Amino acid sequence: MHKRYLMAPGPTPVPERARLVMARQLIHHRGGDFKEIMAEVRRGLKWLFQTESEVLTLTCSGTGAFEAGMINFTSPGDTIICIGGGKFGERWGGVGRAYGMNVVDVEVEWGEHVDPSRLESVLEKHGDATLVTLTASETSTGVIHPVEELAKVVRDKSKALFAVDGITAVGVHDIPMDQWGIDVLVAGSQKAFGIPPGLGFVAAGQRAWERAGDEGHPRFYFDLRRERKRQKDNQTAFTPAISVVLALREVLTMMQEEGKEALWERHRRNAEATRAGVQALGLRLLAKRCSDAVTAALTPKGIAAPEVAAAMLADQGVTIAGGQKHLRENLIRIGHIGFFEASDIRMALGALEQVLRKLGCDVEPGAGLAAAQAVFATSSNPVND
Amino acid sequence: MHKRYLMAPGPTPVPERARLVMARQLIHHRGGDFKEIMAEVRRGLKWLFQTESEVLTLTCSGTGAFEAGMINFTSPGDTIICIGGGKFGERWGGVGRAYGMNVVDVEVEWGEHVDPSRLESVLEKHGDATLVTLTASETSTGVIHPVEELAKVVRDKSKALFAVDGITAVGVHDIPMDQWGIDVLVAGSQKAFGIPPGLGFVAAGQRAWERAGDEGHPRFYFDLRRERKRQKDNQTAFTPAISVVLALREVLTMMQEEGKEALWERHRRNAEATRAGVQALGLRLLAKRCSDAVTAALTPKGIAAPEVAAAMLADQGVTIAGGQKHLRENLIRIGHIGFFEASDIRMALGALEQVLRKLGCDVEPGAGLAAAQAVFATSSNPVND
Repeated sequence: MHKRYLMAPGPTPVPERARLVMARQLIHHRGGDFKEIMAEVRRGLKWLFQTESEVLTLTCSGTGAFEAGMINFTSPGDTIICIGGGKFGERWGGVGRAYGMNVVDVEVEWGEHVDPSRLESVLEKHGDATLVTLTASETSTGVIHPVEELAKVVRDKSKALFAVDGITAVGVHDIPMDQWGIDVLVAGSQKAFGIPPGLGFVAAGQRAWERAGDEGHPRFYFDLRRERKRQKDNQTAFTPAISVVLALREVLTMMQEEGKEALWERHRRNAEATRAGVQALGLRLLAKRCSDAVTAALTPKGIAAPEVAAAMLADQGVTIAGGQKHLRENLIRIGHIGFFEASDIRMALGALEQVLRKLGCDVEPGAGLAAAQAVFATSSNPVND
Repeated sequence: MHKRYLMAPGPTPVPERARLVMARQLIHHRGGDFKEIMAEVRRGLKWLFQTESEVLTLTCSGTGAFEAGMINFTSPGDTIICIGGGKFGERWGGVGRAYGMNVVDVEVEWGEHVDPSRLESVLEKHGDATLVTLTASETSTGVIHPVEELAKVVRDKSKALFAVDGITAVGVHDIPMDQWGIDVLVAGSQKAFGIPPGLGFVAAGQRAWERAGDEGHPRFYFDLRRERKRQKDNQTAFTPAISVVLALREVLTMMQEEGKEALWERHRRNAEATRAGVQALGLRLLAKRCSDAVTAALTPKGIAAPEVAAAMLADQGVTIAGGQKHLRENLIRIGHIGFFEASDIRMALGALEQVLRKLGCDVEPGAGLAAAQAVFATSSNPVND
């Protein structure tokens, strides 16, 4: 049996500091100890989200958190604009339809990013839209959309709120919520936070809260008004995933020790090295505008992506992700979101090279690693240099 | 600083076996390893719920799981009957109202259980009711309702579904879902399972599924149709709280090693010893029909319950719960749900005696412990005898 390595775009490996916290005996969520932890967590999340607004911690997946972020600030019958371009972006249209809203899907080819001018014309056509949704970093395609420019268009050209799924963007890319005028920003614990899934985070600005009335969609567990009231008092409305909250406190401390700029730079460098490495191994990037969370790469002609992913696991012990929907046969996705270092990238690229050679690709031994090393040679990483 | 002991009615102490599992490196939730774990978990949950139906694992609190159990099988405008009698029973009426249903509240004095004949007359008056909700073991009062008799009334006298909040009942009391004709049964990870909060469990029978149509309430994250489809394939619809699922597998194994009857008998014995102990210390039980999950006891005249709870923590390191709402000043609640043994009960009673004496109660040293020991002397416990 191989050593196991998790290089998926979430969940990602959990740092030992956080894992050991979860092995401790539980504490009660209605006591003073927990309140102190929640106070720290709230401060840490605001720091990472770059917002003065409350960042609410919900016990659910990222999907649940984004659903909450959509349904608390809209009403049945509203027109909402959902930017697609991948499995996750398209999912939010499904949420809108499930809640009886008129969904305008902005279809984007998988691998492309949406052009701000295109959003502008959609907004002109649908002046009554109350919400625009965007998946900032699209995990299924490895694309990062031009969030700042899109936020500006929404602000300047409409009365709609801008809700950003930052599930694989927050903690990877610089997304200053308040400065860019993002109304709702969502993240998830198993992504850049590097802790187990179980918590979703929703921040909403003042413009959004003004629309959170009784007349909206039915909701109870996901009623963010109740959550905000309780969390301002360092409590949660319902029993939270306590052990994941304890781990969260630990990784927020680690992130603050590292610093936001260093965190983004580490992700950028790991991503750039991965992109250079997979291209040197003969793969082609799907995205033109690449997210630093995940590298989505098309396999060479004749090489089936599911076989690559299966051999990565069976022969090398490395879990990577395959492609989704119509890209299932052609795409592999290597996650480098969370607490990864240069060594992890080298591990993944070295394993990938062996797998590709085994599957018959004509790859020069060491080609992928050399390309990655060239990237690492040009920038410093405070973590492991 | 004292050693810390958690004797709240959930969360409860997590067995070391389960804590160590959570300290291991994460695995991916879309791989074969996780599918094998989900297959085991599904078998274990069906065994514990005593049902042939699928028991769905959701990443949320017990409240979220019960909300899902209510809204998937009803529609806006439905008349539903919500049996109160405590904070949790009454909560489900709030969910019903949030979703635009006509809620008939069956008010029950806190500490009392509902009489089946009373439910019968409510059902006669509201023949159009589509759902009856009950919190089997009411954590705020320590009451266990006559679930079997109530289920019979619902089946015999109405077309309504019977949804039972078994959050602090499943794994404590024998609640055979299929045999008693319970349509929806819900539990939560931080109760009898003894693992961290983060997972809620919902089982629904065939009668319920027949009503789960598109015409019902809006839902996406809590759409149980999608969950059932995925979980039958040992997957989850959305990223689950993986580390809690791993811990769940571990404690389901422990429960199966112990056996269902032994599990209930251990809870019964611990509860009986606690009840005997607190009464010997001069407290009075709130409930006539006591749950084996939690002992809710009224403090002697002149002794403020919040002071007792505070001193239990400050002087003895023991976390117990206080009373809720109008019972805040008079009630303490000692949890004995989960992996507790006689030693834990003695620990709590010994600490309580010291606290009561410090607060001025005239208590014979050892009186509470002697009463508990008399209970333990009359029955065997396979765990620690």
